[in-house]
Amino acid sequence: MQFTTQQRLDDGVLEREFTLGEIPGILWTPGSASAPVPLVLLGHPPLGLRKMYPRLQARAQDSVAEGFAAATIELPWSGERPGSAAAEQARADLRRALEAGGPVDDEIVDRLILPLVDKAVPEWRAALDALLALPEIGGPVGFSGGVTSIGVRLAVVEPRISAAVLFAGSFVPRTILEEARRVTIPLHVLLQWDDEGNDRPRALDLFDAFGSKEKTLHANMGGHTGVPQFASDEANRFFVRYLK
Amino acid sequence: MQFTTQQRLDDGVLEREFTLGEIPGILWTPGSASAPVPLVLLGHPPLGLRKMYPRLQARAQDSVAEGFAAATIELPWSGERPGSAAAEQARADLRRALEAGGPVDDEIVDRLILPLVDKAVPEWRAALDALLALPEIGGPVGFSGGVTSIGVRLAVVEPRISAAVLFAGSFVPRTILEEARRVTIPLHVLLQWDDEGNDRPRALDLFDAFGSKEKTLHANMGGHTGVPQFASDEANRFFVRYLK
Repeated sequence: MQFTTQQRLDDGVLEREFTLGEIPGILWTPGSASAPVPLVLLGHPPLGLRKMYPRLQARAQDSVAEGFAAATIELPWSGERPGSAAAEQARADLRRALEAGGPVDDEIVDRLILPLVDKAVPEWRAALDALLALPEIGGPVGFSGGVTSIGVRLAVVEPRISAAVLFAGSFVPRTILEEARRVTIPLHVLLQWDDEGNDRPRALDLFDAFGSKEKTLHANMGGHTGVPQFASDEANRFFVRYLK
Repeated sequence: MQFTTQQRLDDGVLEREFTLGEIPGILWTPGSASAPVPLVLLGHPPLGLRKMYPRLQARAQDSVAEGFAAATIELPWSGERPGSAAAEQARADLRRALEAGGPVDDEIVDRLILPLVDKAVPEWRAALDALLALPEIGGPVGFSGGVTSIGVRLAVVEPRISAAVLFAGSFVPRTILEEARRVTIPLHVLLQWDDEGNDRPRALDLFDAFGSKEKTLHANMGGHTGVPQFASDEANRFFVRYLK
């Protein structure tokens, strides 16, 4: 893990870009902390870190304000990382299916999501190794948002993740829905009730499937990007309950 | 409105019992307040105020801690108020249907709930008249919990109610589901995901039906009486957002 840039934000938060092999990432830590802090991994959709940067920075600042470190890495085939013809094809097929207004074929969802999960999850675990080796970061670790299926797989295979905030998304392959039954960590699940790209019954099935004893669903009005500020605040309080 | 008893609780809250004609009620107000405070009406199931008293007092103390007054009144045919053979019959029929394990007939739900709503709602409005006439209570007013259908009807007919916390219950008559479409105030809706006595799809239909632009559904694990403390805290913060 190599730090490449470093800047101090208005609220004192230290923002550092890094690379982990070929993977770019960003780490946010408190301006000052007397002891190692818990870590929140910030998931994001596969649109490229640069494009997601303003929202990620805002989410990171909210996390650091609660006394956490926050970190994220670029997803496979996104941003400045090498592309993949298969991923491009799957995204194009998804767009076409959405434009046609019909339901999206399971086969397209599988091609879009499963290779991404298979490649991204080991990368996030490697990032976790590197981040937890830093003296300023302790644990426990939470995972928040982004591609739901990545969060599900991580929650199943990565014992260092203690709690997760996930979006109840419908582009979740059937096999991931099965994996969801094996998730046992506390979950805080967000659902945008009128999400255009979301099949609500399937999103509710996902929430129902999680094996966790402690899981909460927060549904709010509005579309995909309309999560209200108070819902973000509640998600942060969830991490305060389970990571501190 | 006649105050009959008065006591000071450990946290300084002033608890006063009152009668409004034949209807008993309880009012909780801050130990000291420099200006009139908003009011939260505490709904409850028709089990009698005496039986519900410990939980009502705890909810009231949480409300007063946020700077509200809290008040409740006995429901028709409950507690020490005169009973009703029709209400008894409807409750017995409900019990029998639940014990049989089958779905509860709409006809039973109508007989159980509609007369209760028709009689209770004018009583809560009369209580509101009396409570808002007290110098220590200003507004705005929130309604919280209890019999969902009473909350729905109140939200539709009583313009002084500005926000409501409701349980997504399934014993909601079809006609009340229709009234729900005319509710426009901000709503915070609680659903116990595994509620034995609750038909989950129908509870979700109720949430969907509400006409409010601002409505949030919080679903938690566990049965009817298992609402976790953090969910109550979030409901209180909802009132802080909309009544202050």
